[in-house]
Amino acid sequence: MAQTTVNNGVNVGALLAAREALKSAPQAAKFTWRASCKWQNGTHSQTKIKGFHGLGEEQKHKTEFSFDADHPEIFASEDLGATPVEYVLVGLASCLTAGVAAVAQNRGIQLRSVEAKLEGSMDIQGILGIDSDVRNGFGGIKISYKIDADAKREDIEALVAQSQKRSAVYDIVTNPTNITVVVN
Amino acid sequence: MAQTTVNNGVNVGALLAAREALKSAPQAAKFTWRASCKWQNGTHSQTKIKGFHGLGEEQKHKTEFSFDADHPEIFASEDLGATPVEYVLVGLASCLTAGVAAVAQNRGIQLRSVEAKLEGSMDIQGILGIDSDVRNGFGGIKISYKIDADAKREDIEALVAQSQKRSAVYDIVTNPTNITVVVN
Repeated sequence: MAQTTVNNGVNVGALLAAREALKSAPQAAKFTWRASCKWQNGTHSQTKIKGFHGLGEEQKHKTEFSFDADHPEIFASEDLGATPVEYVLVGLASCLTAGVAAVAQNRGIQLRSVEAKLEGSMDIQGILGIDSDVRNGFGGIKISYKIDADAKREDIEALVAQSQKRSAVYDIVTNPTNITVVVN
Repeated sequence: MAQTTVNNGVNVGALLAAREALKSAPQAAKFTWRASCKWQNGTHSQTKIKGFHGLGEEQKHKTEFSFDADHPEIFASEDLGATPVEYVLVGLASCLTAGVAAVAQNRGIQLRSVEAKLEGSMDIQGILGIDSDVRNGFGGIKISYKIDADAKREDIEALVAQSQKRSAVYDIVTNPTNITVVVN
């Protein structure tokens, strides 16, 4: 299949050009992503996303994004937003899915639809402090992809595998990341 | 300070009762959190959150939450949503902040305001495949809290420390979690 006929909406040419440009300017590849969170009441908070740093200067999204998070009613909360752990699933799903589209574009595979279902198991004995041997976070995460594309099954599986290999959030969840917390 | 005068909007009594109830019914503590992601175009996807499983039965949020994710314009994308890694910061910020409120309530500390600023550093040489020694995810995350509360500085610092200790997302980011991906 000629790659020129494939259009998944990803500008792979620009990404490949960026890769070449950053090879000789590694400092520009250093990004900082930011979030600003304000407690509202109870377990309800609101987090805003607007500016970030990259390519050697301050950047910003076209619009400010605002996200309410809360706990559900069965935890005696008001359910005014998705739970924090569900936001992690959103990040993971969207990172792998963007990767599938980008890799497909690079490999000349036309996508028709891509859907992912995610399930994160969690034993809340951890966060409730019932059993210190139970971890607070997910015991594990299962993701199942359903992809309709002009490609053989093995090529579709290879798309998903390559997306995992280059995914920022897949790395964050499967490997440890250092967090420093200070109180001002 | 009498705990009865403190109101951070967290029903700690209900949480403590749940902890007692789950001690004798550990099966009910097994939760499954879900997300459903659909690719839109390019790096843009939409993820929906509604149902989950816990306390031995199917549960659902009062409303369905929908989240658009995308890459910014400097990555030749349309910037139709926050980036996947920013969603991880939302999850981390909201988890720790809900924890601060819950621990404060349990310790009889009245909060007036809680704000967190998060910064995640990322060298995009990783995701672009320029240098395989550079990880895809965050190099590290810095969080700074500004908390106004009826408490001494050391007690406020202890709130934040205890919140980290019980936070699901703090655990997910700082420790490895297994992810299984299948293609149907």
